[in-house]
Amino acid sequence: MSMSLSVFTADGEVHVILPEDEQELAEATSRAKLLTYKPSLLDKVSNLSTQLRAPLAELGRRLHLSNSKIGIRMNLTLQPEPYVVSTNFHGSLTALISSVLPQTKLLGCDDLLENQKAVKTSSELAHILQSVRLASRGFNAAEACIQPRLIEPQVASIARSAFDCAFESDSIQRSYGSFYCMSGPNSAKAGVAYARTRRRELLDGDLVMIHANTCADGYWTDITRTYSVGEPSGRHQEIRSAIKEARHAALDAIKPGIAAREVDRAARSVMSAHGFGDAFQHATGHGVGYAAANANGLPRIHPCSPDTLQEGMTFNIEPAAYFDGYGGMRHCDVVAVTETGYKVLSDF
Amino acid sequence: MSMSLSVFTADGEVHVILPEDEQELAEATSRAKLLTYKPSLLDKVSNLSTQLRAPLAELGRRLHLSNSKIGIRMNLTLQPEPYVVSTNFHGSLTALISSVLPQTKLLGCDDLLENQKAVKTSSELAHILQSVRLASRGFNAAEACIQPRLIEPQVASIARSAFDCAFESDSIQRSYGSFYCMSGPNSAKAGVAYARTRRRELLDGDLVMIHANTCADGYWTDITRTYSVGEPSGRHQEIRSAIKEARHAALDAIKPGIAAREVDRAARSVMSAHGFGDAFQHATGHGVGYAAANANGLPRIHPCSPDTLQEGMTFNIEPAAYFDGYGGMRHCDVVAVTETGYKVLSDF
Repeated sequence: MSMSLSVFTADGEVHVILPEDEQELAEATSRAKLLTYKPSLLDKVSNLSTQLRAPLAELGRRLHLSNSKIGIRMNLTLQPEPYVVSTNFHGSLTALISSVLPQTKLLGCDDLLENQKAVKTSSELAHILQSVRLASRGFNAAEACIQPRLIEPQVASIARSAFDCAFESDSIQRSYGSFYCMSGPNSAKAGVAYARTRRRELLDGDLVMIHANTCADGYWTDITRTYSVGEPSGRHQEIRSAIKEARHAALDAIKPGIAAREVDRAARSVMSAHGFGDAFQHATGHGVGYAAANANGLPRIHPCSPDTLQEGMTFNIEPAAYFDGYGGMRHCDVVAVTETGYKVLSDF
Repeated sequence: MSMSLSVFTADGEVHVILPEDEQELAEATSRAKLLTYKPSLLDKVSNLSTQLRAPLAELGRRLHLSNSKIGIRMNLTLQPEPYVVSTNFHGSLTALISSVLPQTKLLGCDDLLENQKAVKTSSELAHILQSVRLASRGFNAAEACIQPRLIEPQVASIARSAFDCAFESDSIQRSYGSFYCMSGPNSAKAGVAYARTRRRELLDGDLVMIHANTCADGYWTDITRTYSVGEPSGRHQEIRSAIKEARHAALDAIKPGIAAREVDRAARSVMSAHGFGDAFQHATGHGVGYAAANANGLPRIHPCSPDTLQEGMTFNIEPAAYFDGYGGMRHCDVVAVTETGYKVLSDF
């Protein structure tokens, strides 16, 4: 987690330095080799940099890191939230490594890591599927409760509670994340940097967007469904029908070797044909799995994307239409590229 | 938020570069001067570093930053979680500033910021009090629901839902955070780096610890209460009585000019006198207000703390006792140093 340091060796070993109270959880969820430290000391004031010195030096000896090259994150990343706080190393990480392992050379490995994260193994795909299934419990609860006069936080809470209380299987050690509810005109504002639940009361005839970013044991989802309060109006049906068609067009374009921008084009041209081109304000998708809502996650399903789809890539497909003052609708699925096409992981 | 950049000038102005969809929220919650950028572009693939270039250059012109010194975070920090993702700039921030404002000199200002954050103005204290009061709604709901056979996530969810649905006043724009439930032997593991709700069923005779880190408009709480399932046993009463006495001893030691370690000593000596010295495994407190659970927040109420209390400082007082295999009890309050003593902000 955020007080840990992971070291990946060229021959595939993973070593993790972590606080001792996380050992049980790490053993249950990974096969990494663990090195623990005591996070809470009473005999001196200390911080994470000082606590990591001894175990990092020990790992340096074990792995013969003297005179080696170490790749680290040098540039901007989006970091998912495993807890209410996270550590931001700023320059401390380079300072720490240079101080503890002075003969090593530090290299930026940002692109390498991003590319590695984009393509998932079958085991990783199974974890993402499990995470998506757990998230579906929240959506089912939200759909069942939506009615006039509830306020948005009540709907979001009902979804979140159903998710929190529904560990799918004993194999999930920890789940967390958020459900957001945006209703009526608030749903028109959902195509932006931050989802936000406000205090608005649901009214008959509203569009109600439920958006979730949830996590099970480190594997993230990015899912949206939009419901109607009461009977869907003609306009609701019209938008829903366009989004459904755009979704199918995007899905049908997915297979290994295809340019990611072609998938965006497939969805966007359907939305435009229905007159909703301007209302579809964001890209059709982005990589998912290791972060919530990272618009730069690979592959970028964006009109200008330089990325090419590969088997095992996971991303979302999120055709949407937003109308200021009226409402917005988005249907966001998590999909994986298969050998011959696609699989919708959020098939509920 | 995490896609923003704040600039503080020497004469007290605050400028914030932020995504345009956050403007409404920023205007409602701060008096900073705002400069917005468009976070979602369809005509090119971009990331935060490239999006910030133009507004940062503009701000540089407005503030005449050419040839000036700019203090930035260079070292490790704990960052509270306003959303499911946060941006980690790594080295990108220094690279960005050096590239956009090449004549400026970058200086680490970590200590300056930490010291500034430790002492709160009366307006900041009012915000923290408001945040604490909102959190209390979750604790009230948890206390009312605790009974045998509920599982920990159900209790945590009930607390969280009550908190989520109870905006205290129109002046709170956004609230978030977490409630954790740790029961029976799980509560013995609570004095560590991460609070964690597991799947355990509550049993009659359990200690049940509810821990919250919640936020209202940027002001954080760090609060714990421990309840008994059914009638408190003699042992429960004994531990509770020691913790209550330790809490009062710590509070009585608080006033401006006192060494923070004296406050720790006051609590610790009471716990030791009751035979609970070894069970009190962590420091008595740490600074709170701008982060959830930062053990290095100033002032550190730790046996070896070099810090001195000042009027306006806010921190927690969290005497506790943990017994492996049995359970743990912690009572964590948020307190402020007043002109002559202390004020307990979490007085519920």
